[in-house]
Amino acid sequence: MPSLPDMTTPNVAELARDQGGQGPRDVLAETPELKPALFEWLCRMGDSTLVLGHRLSEWCGRGPALEEDIAVANVALDLIGHTQMWLGLAAEVEEGGRSVDDLAYLRDVMRFRNIKLAELPNGDIGRTLMRQFLFDAWHHLMLERLVQSSVTEVAEIAAKALKEVTYHLGRSSDLVIRLGDGTAESHARMQEALDLLWPYTGEMFTGDAVDETVAEAGVAPRPEDLRAAWTALVTEVLFEATLSVPENGDVHRGGKQGRHTEHLGYLLAEMQFLQRAYPGAEW
Amino acid sequence: MPSLPDMTTPNVAELARDQGGQGPRDVLAETPELKPALFEWLCRMGDSTLVLGHRLSEWCGRGPALEEDIAVANVALDLIGHTQMWLGLAAEVEEGGRSVDDLAYLRDVMRFRNIKLAELPNGDIGRTLMRQFLFDAWHHLMLERLVQSSVTEVAEIAAKALKEVTYHLGRSSDLVIRLGDGTAESHARMQEALDLLWPYTGEMFTGDAVDETVAEAGVAPRPEDLRAAWTALVTEVLFEATLSVPENGDVHRGGKQGRHTEHLGYLLAEMQFLQRAYPGAEW
Repeated sequence: MPSLPDMTTPNVAELARDQGGQGPRDVLAETPELKPALFEWLCRMGDSTLVLGHRLSEWCGRGPALEEDIAVANVALDLIGHTQMWLGLAAEVEEGGRSVDDLAYLRDVMRFRNIKLAELPNGDIGRTLMRQFLFDAWHHLMLERLVQSSVTEVAEIAAKALKEVTYHLGRSSDLVIRLGDGTAESHARMQEALDLLWPYTGEMFTGDAVDETVAEAGVAPRPEDLRAAWTALVTEVLFEATLSVPENGDVHRGGKQGRHTEHLGYLLAEMQFLQRAYPGAEW
Repeated sequence: MPSLPDMTTPNVAELARDQGGQGPRDVLAETPELKPALFEWLCRMGDSTLVLGHRLSEWCGRGPALEEDIAVANVALDLIGHTQMWLGLAAEVEEGGRSVDDLAYLRDVMRFRNIKLAELPNGDIGRTLMRQFLFDAWHHLMLERLVQSSVTEVAEIAAKALKEVTYHLGRSSDLVIRLGDGTAESHARMQEALDLLWPYTGEMFTGDAVDETVAEAGVAPRPEDLRAAWTALVTEVLFEATLSVPENGDVHRGGKQGRHTEHLGYLLAEMQFLQRAYPGAEW
């Protein structure tokens, strides 16, 4: 949670360097052909946390209970904090003169690289929590692997984010169980949410040439390599929640390549309004 | 409807001039102190039709029946057509170098002058039609009076718009009656819509210094002067629709002075996205 002081994180930069990690400039000096793929991959990480963080922020002041309202807002802040790190590094790698704010606020919808799951409308709080759980489970596994990234900064960001995402995952799996194994109404809503969201989960485990290039360079795992652990984790929680796992999760993809649902444009119109209306505004 | 050729409108400019009407420059040459109020008043007219037109456009492709979908979209187009005329005249009166598009797409929420009724979310089609009826009844009475405006262009715009709004009012009152005096479900929904919207209707009949100034100059009637006829018309239709008229309609105001509900900012974020993201874009 962003409000807690950071007293427990080891100096991950040092740790990563001890493990033989390199800064992005070192890596790119050795393998300059990595640059476009690394930039794309960093945008995918940062855009998914940005878009999901924005969706969660829509609950602010509207949560079903004060505790839940504050918790969701805190997760939103964490994810937007991760965005700042991922897109900040993307801007550094790009060396195109764009700042992290330019990337967040001045790209149009076709340039966004988030997974589609992140951009779906919130629905009720049950659907929001189910989406969060499905994402958190992937996010946690991904960050656990990224701590060993060949690029020092990636490992650093992952180590910082991992602590927060451990908390996110604990919270969302707990709530999925309580609501799934709750009343008839809450059970029915969670099953409906799961049925709706499941076909979007496959995108998290579907690689393309970008993923292959960064995996080859040791930056990140192949998306496919996280599928088995994710399925095991998710299945266990859903079983405890007395929910039925739907069949086909590999239906809706394309977000990572910039092909989005109709919902993302509306989200960006709201999210980017300030910078669009008052270009360069600062405070 | 905008798709029908204009074969029946008399030459209103000529008629208005025959009646001793004047162009805005003539009027402003005589009474330069009228300028700020005239600009404000034109923005109020144009912003209400723009914002309501945009709300209606949100139904496009989502109407409950094809016929209704097309009809609502046509009314939206009519209202946006009126906007072009009202804000076009506002830009001319302002002489500030702003175009009609600048006024529509580059003002932020506090500069919008529409009544709050226009910006409320659509709700179901029943609520959308109820709002349309309450607005159309006012709009029709207003335009009937504006045909005699002391400013030629105002009279011209009103004459053009009046034909369309006569059709709007016929259609929305017919549907309010059919849905109000329909099934138990449709009746309940229409009553709920009326109860929700009624407290916003008073703003249409509440004047301020701007209204007083333009009324003094013969540009437009005082808002208060339309109340009795509106109440008679609306009450008759609601009676036929077997709906109960709520008590207090004078609750939510301030839109005409730029104090809006939270909904307008989101509407503008969407409506203005293209011009904000691609400044000066044309086709």
